[in-house]
Amino acid sequence: MAALQWDSIDNKAVDTARLLAADAVEKVGNGHPGTAMSLAPAAYLLFQKVMRRDPADNEWIGRDRFILSVGHSSLTQYVQLYLGGYGLELDDLKALRTWGSKTPGHPEYGHTAGVEITTGPLGQGLASAVGFAYASRFERGMFDPEAAAGASPFDHFVYVIAGDGDLQEGITSEASSLAGHQQLGNLIAIYDSNQISIEDDTNIAFTEDVAARYKAYNWHVQTVDWKTTGVYVEDLNALNNAIDAAKGETDKPSLIILKTIIGWPSPKKQNTGKIHGSALGAEELAAVKEILGFDPAQTFEVADEVIEHTRKALQRGAAAHSEWDAAFALWADANPERKALLDRVLSGALPEGVEAALPVFEGGTDVSTRAASGKVLTALGAVIPELWGGSADLAESNNTTIGGATSFIPREHSTHEWTGNEHGRVLHFGIREHAMAAILNGIVLHGNTRPFGGTFLIFSDYMRPAVRLAALMKAPSIFVWTHDSVALGEDGPTHQPIEQLATLRAIPGLDVVRPGDANEVSWAWKTILERRGGPAGIVLTRQNIPVFTRGDGEAVGDVLASARNVSKGAYILAEAANGTPDVILIGTGSEVQLALAARDRLKTEGIGARVVSAPSLEWFKEQSAEYRESVLPKTVTARVSIEAGIALTWDSYVGDRGRSISIEHFGASADYKTLFREFGITTEAVVAAAKDSLAAL
Amino acid sequence: MAALQWDSIDNKAVDTARLLAADAVEKVGNGHPGTAMSLAPAAYLLFQKVMRRDPADNEWIGRDRFILSVGHSSLTQYVQLYLGGYGLELDDLKALRTWGSKTPGHPEYGHTAGVEITTGPLGQGLASAVGFAYASRFERGMFDPEAAAGASPFDHFVYVIAGDGDLQEGITSEASSLAGHQQLGNLIAIYDSNQISIEDDTNIAFTEDVAARYKAYNWHVQTVDWKTTGVYVEDLNALNNAIDAAKGETDKPSLIILKTIIGWPSPKKQNTGKIHGSALGAEELAAVKEILGFDPAQTFEVADEVIEHTRKALQRGAAAHSEWDAAFALWADANPERKALLDRVLSGALPEGVEAALPVFEGGTDVSTRAASGKVLTALGAVIPELWGGSADLAESNNTTIGGATSFIPREHSTHEWTGNEHGRVLHFGIREHAMAAILNGIVLHGNTRPFGGTFLIFSDYMRPAVRLAALMKAPSIFVWTHDSVALGEDGPTHQPIEQLATLRAIPGLDVVRPGDANEVSWAWKTILERRGGPAGIVLTRQNIPVFTRGDGEAVGDVLASARNVSKGAYILAEAANGTPDVILIGTGSEVQLALAARDRLKTEGIGARVVSAPSLEWFKEQSAEYRESVLPKTVTARVSIEAGIALTWDSYVGDRGRSISIEHFGASADYKTLFREFGITTEAVVAAAKDSLAAL
Repeated sequence: MAALQWDSIDNKAVDTARLLAADAVEKVGNGHPGTAMSLAPAAYLLFQKVMRRDPADNEWIGRDRFILSVGHSSLTQYVQLYLGGYGLELDDLKALRTWGSKTPGHPEYGHTAGVEITTGPLGQGLASAVGFAYASRFERGMFDPEAAAGASPFDHFVYVIAGDGDLQEGITSEASSLAGHQQLGNLIAIYDSNQISIEDDTNIAFTEDVAARYKAYNWHVQTVDWKTTGVYVEDLNALNNAIDAAKGETDKPSLIILKTIIGWPSPKKQNTGKIHGSALGAEELAAVKEILGFDPAQTFEVADEVIEHTRKALQRGAAAHSEWDAAFALWADANPERKALLDRVLSGALPEGVEAALPVFEGGTDVSTRAASGKVLTALGAVIPELWGGSADLAESNNTTIGGATSFIPREHSTHEWTGNEHGRVLHFGIREHAMAAILNGIVLHGNTRPFGGTFLIFSDYMRPAVRLAALMKAPSIFVWTHDSVALGEDGPTHQPIEQLATLRAIPGLDVVRPGDANEVSWAWKTILERRGGPAGIVLTRQNIPVFTRGDGEAVGDVLASARNVSKGAYILAEAANGTPDVILIGTGSEVQLALAARDRLKTEGIGARVVSAPSLEWFKEQSAEYRESVLPKTVTARVSIEAGIALTWDSYVGDRGRSISIEHFGASADYKTLFREFGITTEAVVAAAKDSLAAL
Repeated sequence: MAALQWDSIDNKAVDTARLLAADAVEKVGNGHPGTAMSLAPAAYLLFQKVMRRDPADNEWIGRDRFILSVGHSSLTQYVQLYLGGYGLELDDLKALRTWGSKTPGHPEYGHTAGVEITTGPLGQGLASAVGFAYASRFERGMFDPEAAAGASPFDHFVYVIAGDGDLQEGITSEASSLAGHQQLGNLIAIYDSNQISIEDDTNIAFTEDVAARYKAYNWHVQTVDWKTTGVYVEDLNALNNAIDAAKGETDKPSLIILKTIIGWPSPKKQNTGKIHGSALGAEELAAVKEILGFDPAQTFEVADEVIEHTRKALQRGAAAHSEWDAAFALWADANPERKALLDRVLSGALPEGVEAALPVFEGGTDVSTRAASGKVLTALGAVIPELWGGSADLAESNNTTIGGATSFIPREHSTHEWTGNEHGRVLHFGIREHAMAAILNGIVLHGNTRPFGGTFLIFSDYMRPAVRLAALMKAPSIFVWTHDSVALGEDGPTHQPIEQLATLRAIPGLDVVRPGDANEVSWAWKTILERRGGPAGIVLTRQNIPVFTRGDGEAVGDVLASARNVSKGAYILAEAANGTPDVILIGTGSEVQLALAARDRLKTEGIGARVVSAPSLEWFKEQSAEYRESVLPKTVTARVSIEAGIALTWDSYVGDRGRSISIEHFGASADYKTLFREFGITTEAVVAAAKDSLAAL
């Protein structure tokens, strides 16, 4: 590596960055100036000297990725996006944290150009960065597996800036253990160890030996201590050397522990919790400006020479991009099929042949929807190379293994059950549900492949913060949640979801999909893969349930509708006997069969019951008002919902006259048939509720 | 320490335990035999040789605590509870995992005598064990602070058996870092390192150096490898020596890494993922019995000499208890006031003077409910010594510091902001929300003190698995969740709760309490502390809101009702002008003020609007049908709910004719007044919705 080129203008630019951060917080009156001030040199080094990026093209697939895990220090990123010419201007910095600005409190993916991922909830950025590194290796395997290390246009680095909070959160422990296990040599995290969090000195709660912990995870760990001499010296050469060493370490992720003083050089507030989360105040800010040789009377001061200097990032970026383009063109010429595959994957389109590959399950058999899902994944895996995934140590239970595929781990970690390959497509997360979700988010944000990750539905609770972030980012991560009700049986209430379906549906932008039989599973997967507007969770039974014998179209007479209707979210599975429903029975998943059985019973009593299978209310809500009215006509107010969980979701669907067959309490340990009987999830209960609803007018 | 007394009858008892576990799983046809078989010696050692327990008195406060973090291996515990005479008999083991049995799939607190805590969701047991150790030190400080180490009747050990899953989950990383920081010398965890989880060899996902990681957390780490000689030898002396060494290490928690072979001595299935989670099968089970010298034709075979031998635990327990009783009596005689305090705390009663201590906030002022809560905690802290708590690095934001109290940390970890004391009462969890919740659970289960832990409401998502377990166990942990809506403002959508109120209310048995002004905060805290039937979360504003000027009783005319009504969960805060409401406006928290303002506007238009403040729907549901009807009469179907989050909770309260003022999408970064205006959380919107509802008949 060449020696670091660092001139006095760079120092001035760094000080400008510091003061822009302080000014921006001062203007809006709130925010986090301290870290942005003291991290300005490190961020500047990355953006101006280290990373291969082109400010004019934030979609360049060859770019180094940057993840600000300390999302509250968003100015660390915004100021560099301004200086480097990524699209932000001074007015954007002046509009920090105000309605409609490009500079919200935390960096938001899809909102501000150059932001790779939404961060803020601590730990998520670093955990998802591990997913970025997974994705880069997987994509390398798809598109350019033969190239020597570092010689492919698909090689690049993933840089993270993390803080004390990130290092304390459990999600990063999970993800960091996986990163070491996976030997992710292109992942480089700078840990801003400033020893200050909101409760001031972190010694109050955080005295572990972080370096030793990360070594235990198989990371390459270096410490750069800017306080080491007793005088605070922002030694950029030392940091740059550490980054070079980290880049040179290709078999381990790297942690660079950077010891900084938060808020430096604020004379009164540096090294305090105060400067972490509030404005400096006019007097203190003026003092900082004087110390740095800036005019205390000015705000948002950027010397022409500074911005001219930093905007050269555009030229350097263009040159790097152009050099890369040449290598990429060589690759494309040599690999026309892979180039076509890359183009398709980046476009988000599915390949030909997905529908033809979908398994068709024979009516009249009994199949758990998790088993059906496993068959679908193996079938689709054969035609969709960008589909990959696994589970949090529940492969056989979740049926998340694409048949015949190798495992995405270094070969040396192969076991007698699993064959590892650095470019494999079966993921093994260990018992780390939260990191799994964050890693999936990182993977989808990195390069448009379609990863999935499985666990029991109950453990979606462990994943929630990352699932919510996926929804907020509209990132199409796919979660496979099996064992979806008390019908998981003997493991008992700690493992039985009760409120999870309702509470997952409550997350704005998350598609919750609970297919009612094996053929609905096929169509559910197809629909999930066709959509890219946000995350989806597919919710599957442990127990066998009937595969319905269906017709090819809509429900007519006693002929059931085709499972193809799943994409509409809810559909008439069975029409009322005389075509005009007296009552509508709405079911999902394993409870759809109860609705069908109740329909038959009600028919014998002259009551016409329509059965609506409702695998995804989110998809249903997207349908036209006409379609929705055709499925759930306003005039039919006698309604029953059937779902083996709390009724909360269904209150608005069944209305004042409706009834819900549900479970409003925790489960118990017993076989599932006993539990369904004891908890009233039965055909009899549905019939009684239907009559009750009819009588309620 | 005396040498381990171990005879051939102990070996036979251990083998009996192994086979009882295998037989029990074989009989029901499902479960987890492997770990129960290979952990039988360690569990037997703890229950029969190491722990100070009295099987006849599971409430004995001097007992060593036992936490089975590997909850799926519940037989590890059940078999010892049977052998030791804790109340389980052979028939209970035969009823494993069946409806109504005392031996559910995972150990359940409150269900099976001798079970200290419900475990199963991985990581929770070990994390809560840290809370047990916190509690033992805190209680020691309350009741017997002067006694020398080890010399107090309040001294005892906390033993945990944990597994690979526990060690991988992030929650244990958080809790273990805290345990080392806190120097919890009485916490001893045996980590069953059998290298097998559901996906078989853990090398597939877990190759970190656990010993080095725990040393980095400041734990005392030992390894006992029963495979070290190449032949598997269950060296109980080595394990016992390690436990002795762990007990001798009083300034660090101890981790004993016990290398075992899962399912040993099963000839074909030991050391495989198969034996982890399924029955052995008749042939393999018979083979194990032959290897161990048991009759393969018999099941649940317990020789008389074995049960006679193991039930001597009752005599030993009685003797230990009696010896302790003498020491306890000496303590009680010497400390009559502390004895009275102990009796009161154990009884669950609050002291005199709580109501008198409650702050009264002046009507017409503006106070955030978080600030009010901080004042209440300081006021109540002065009269309730068992009240303690803190936050996950948000002390000043959550207002969770009891004024004047010292911090619960070793003195050497004092910082310039906080003074540490090993018996302090201010808790500092660092940025570890999930461990915080699990630790709170451990504390309340240990000894009836009342701990609370705070963070932002959005981060309740990080805590959910532990919050749910508190509800399942009916453990009265208290969660303080501030910054309770988009009104937290500029931090933006990553920090703004939208669905959290609804999804927390969805957890069966969790009380969610969102006071509508400062005086409701006072009464909410009083009610939460009076209740001990389960966990509660108090949900508080960041922003200032009006303190209502109220009367002393019910709402009459324009006089608002007393805040004392909070204990009823929902109450008429302001009656309709003419006493007969045309429409009911139901609000919580910061939105109650909008309901009141809308009532005034509607009055000018001749519309009578009743305002119902509904701080806790769970408490409201407990009221008599009469009371509920008096607040929300069925005849008044024009209704509006007002809450700055999703409307989901309110669907069933407002009904078909009702309307909800809500936010159904993620938030944004701006000041809160702008957000409320842009998102339609306004008086105008309430007025319009009321008219809309009235018009909807």
